[in-house]
Amino acid sequence: MTTARIVGVGMTDFGVHDRPLAELFAEAAFAAVDDAGLETDAIDAFYLGNAMGGQTERDTHLAPTLATHVGVAGVPCQRYEDACATSSNAFKHAVRAVEAGQHDVVLVGGVERCTPVTGLETPEMTSVFASAAHRQYEQPTGLSFPGVFGLLTTRHMHEHGTTEEDLAAVAVKNHRHGTMNPRAQFGTETTVEDILEGPIVASPFRLMDCCPFSDGAAAVLVASEEAAASLSEARPSVSVAGVGHATDVVPLSDKVDPTATQSARDAATQAYEEAGIEASDVDVAEVHDCFTGAEVLAIEALGFVEDGEGGRAAVEGTTALGGRIPVNPSGGLKAKGHPIGATGVAQLVELTEQLRGDAGDRQVADAEIGLAHNLGGDAATTVVSVLEVAQ
Amino acid sequence: MTTARIVGVGMTDFGVHDRPLAELFAEAAFAAVDDAGLETDAIDAFYLGNAMGGQTERDTHLAPTLATHVGVAGVPCQRYEDACATSSNAFKHAVRAVEAGQHDVVLVGGVERCTPVTGLETPEMTSVFASAAHRQYEQPTGLSFPGVFGLLTTRHMHEHGTTEEDLAAVAVKNHRHGTMNPRAQFGTETTVEDILEGPIVASPFRLMDCCPFSDGAAAVLVASEEAAASLSEARPSVSVAGVGHATDVVPLSDKVDPTATQSARDAATQAYEEAGIEASDVDVAEVHDCFTGAEVLAIEALGFVEDGEGGRAAVEGTTALGGRIPVNPSGGLKAKGHPIGATGVAQLVELTEQLRGDAGDRQVADAEIGLAHNLGGDAATTVVSVLEVAQ
Repeated sequence: MTTARIVGVGMTDFGVHDRPLAELFAEAAFAAVDDAGLETDAIDAFYLGNAMGGQTERDTHLAPTLATHVGVAGVPCQRYEDACATSSNAFKHAVRAVEAGQHDVVLVGGVERCTPVTGLETPEMTSVFASAAHRQYEQPTGLSFPGVFGLLTTRHMHEHGTTEEDLAAVAVKNHRHGTMNPRAQFGTETTVEDILEGPIVASPFRLMDCCPFSDGAAAVLVASEEAAASLSEARPSVSVAGVGHATDVVPLSDKVDPTATQSARDAATQAYEEAGIEASDVDVAEVHDCFTGAEVLAIEALGFVEDGEGGRAAVEGTTALGGRIPVNPSGGLKAKGHPIGATGVAQLVELTEQLRGDAGDRQVADAEIGLAHNLGGDAATTVVSVLEVAQ
Repeated sequence: MTTARIVGVGMTDFGVHDRPLAELFAEAAFAAVDDAGLETDAIDAFYLGNAMGGQTERDTHLAPTLATHVGVAGVPCQRYEDACATSSNAFKHAVRAVEAGQHDVVLVGGVERCTPVTGLETPEMTSVFASAAHRQYEQPTGLSFPGVFGLLTTRHMHEHGTTEEDLAAVAVKNHRHGTMNPRAQFGTETTVEDILEGPIVASPFRLMDCCPFSDGAAAVLVASEEAAASLSEARPSVSVAGVGHATDVVPLSDKVDPTATQSARDAATQAYEEAGIEASDVDVAEVHDCFTGAEVLAIEALGFVEDGEGGRAAVEGTTALGGRIPVNPSGGLKAKGHPIGATGVAQLVELTEQLRGDAGDRQVADAEIGLAHNLGGDAATTVVSVLEVAQ
C-alpha cells in the first residue's frame, strides 16, 4: 500500500469575499496546482467539502460545478457535508482512495461563504449554522452553536475550575498568532481585559471568545508516493501518517461525558495508532477553536494536557508559539477565520507549510509531526489527521 | 482484494410520509439489517445520501444524527450530496472502502422528503431542486429540471425524429410496471392518450412525462465476501461486479453533444470494464427516468439500443417486462417515485430483489446481471453499478 502525500497546497485569505463561490474556490485550487508543479489534467478525482451551499448560495451539485470551473470535469467528483468537519472528511476519503490505489492525484478542496455577501445577515446565518444541531431535540429550543459549546464549557468550568480568564487567554494567544499569518481574518492582538469587557454571546462566551463568520477556500493535492516522486518541480511533500474519524451521539443530552468530546478521543486514538505515535510526539497542532472553550476541550481530548488542565494551557504558555505544544499557530478559527467547509483543509495547508519550514514568523522550530483536529456539529464528528515530514 | 456484496436491503414505500426524516430512514435501515440477519453492532461505517436536507428540513450534519437514531453512532459517518445521484455516490464509496479492506460491513442509506410535508409547496420545492442547475448561467434564466431535460429531449426529437408518443410510451410502460410494485407511489396504469392530453410542464414534457415529488428512504448493507459468508441466516447476497462514476461539464451550453449524456457513457464504460461484461449481458436495468426523455437518453448511453433508437424502445416493447432488456421493472422514478437522496439506493434494492428472484409479479426471468444508472443535475454526474448473482 502506498502512503498518501500532500504535494501541493493553496488557500485564499480568509475574510470577506464578494465574488462567486466558484471563483473563490478556483483561487485556492490553482494555487495548490501551481504549488505542486503539475497540470490540472494530472488530477484524477475531486473531493469537495462544502457544508451549507444549498442554504446560503442556492447552489448544490457543487462538486461537478467547481470541477467544471477549474477544468477538471470528467473525473469522479463528490461533495461531502459533515458540518464543520466537512472538508477534513473529504480529505480522509481522498487519502483512503490514494492508499488503496484507486486514484493517483486527488484534488481536495473546501469552500464556503458565510458573511453577508451571500445576502444572509448574521441572524439568518446563525440560523443556518444551527441546522447542524439536532432538529427535534435542540433546534426548537433555540440552541445555536455558541450555546452548544457554551454548555460544554460551562460544565468544564464547574468540574475543573476553568475561568473566563483562562478562556480569554486562548483568544489572546490565537490573535497573537494570527498577526503573523497574512491570510488571517484578524491581524490584531487583543487582551484579556478587552475580551472580558465584551458583550456575552452565550454564557460563558463573550464576543471575542467566538470565531468570526468568514468566506474562504482551501485546497490540497493528495498523491501517491509514486505520483509525488514524479513532481520534481514541486515544493517538498509531506506524508499523511494517519487519519482517524469517529462520531458520537448527536444530542448534547445523550453524551456520556459532556466535556470529553468523545469523537475527538476516538479519532485521535485511531490516528495515533495508524501513525505509530503518541500525543507527546506531536510538534504542532491546528485544532478546532470555534470558541475558546472548544480549544480547551480539544487539547485534553488529544492528550496534549491532562483532563481538567486544558484551561491553564494558554495562560501558562504551553500552547503558544515557543511553548511545549504550539496550538493554532495559524491563528486558528478564532483569528484566521472559519469558512465552514474550508476549515478542515485550511488546517492541512497550515501544517504542510509548518512541516516544510515555510511558515515565516509563526514557524514552529523543527516541526516534523503536525496534527489537525476538525470537529463538526455537537462535537459529534471529529477527524484527526497526522502529517509528517516525508522521508 | 475482496468483492463487495450487498447482504441486506430495505426501503420504505415511496409517496407521502408525514414523519421525521430520522424515522423514515430508520424504517429502511432496520429492514436492511433484518434482511441481512445481523445486529447493528456489526456495522462499522455509515455512508449517507441526502441531497437537500439543509434547504428542506433545516437539518444538516445528518449522517451522525441518523446514525444516532438507529444506534450506530461511533462509527465513521459521512453524508454525500451529488444532486439526484447522491446515494449511488455514497454506495460507490462504500463499495471501494469494503474492497480495500477499510470496512467490513457498511450501512449505505438514502433518505429525502420532497412533498409538502416539509412545509415547502411545489413551487418552492421546484426552486430547491433548481439549486442543482448552474448558479450563474442557468438559475437566473429560470431553468428548472423539467426545462433541462426538456431541452435535451427536444434536441433528440430534432435529430432523431423521436415523438411525444414515443415519450408517452415510456410513462405507460413504467406505470404498468409500477402496478406490480407494492412500494410504488403510483399504482395505476395510464395511456398514451391520457398523457398527451395533460398540461405541458416544460416542452415537450406534459405532466405525466414527469416523475412525482416523493418522500422515502432506502438502505443496503455492503459487506466483504468474508463478512457475507458469516451471515448464514441472511437472504442470498449479490456481488457488486463494477461501479463506474463520471462527471461532465455542468452548463448545458457547454455540452459537446447535448443528447449524449456523456457522463453516463463514461460511467457505463468503466462499470462494464470492471465487471468484464458488455451492455448485451445485462438482464435487467433500473435507469434514471426523472422524465420520460431521460430514459430515452439513458438506454442509448448505456448501449442497450443504438443512438437515435431510444425513442422507439418503449413503443416496441424492447424495454418492457418480457422484452429484450427490461428497464425499470420497479416502475422507475416515474411510477415508483423519486425521493432524491433515496433513489440511487432504491435502484439497488430493486436489483437485489430481482437477482434473488424475489420480485414477485415484476420478476425478470433468469435475471443474473442487473444494472443501475443514477444521474445527477444537468446530466453532469452519473454512477453506473453492475450487480451479479453471487457465485
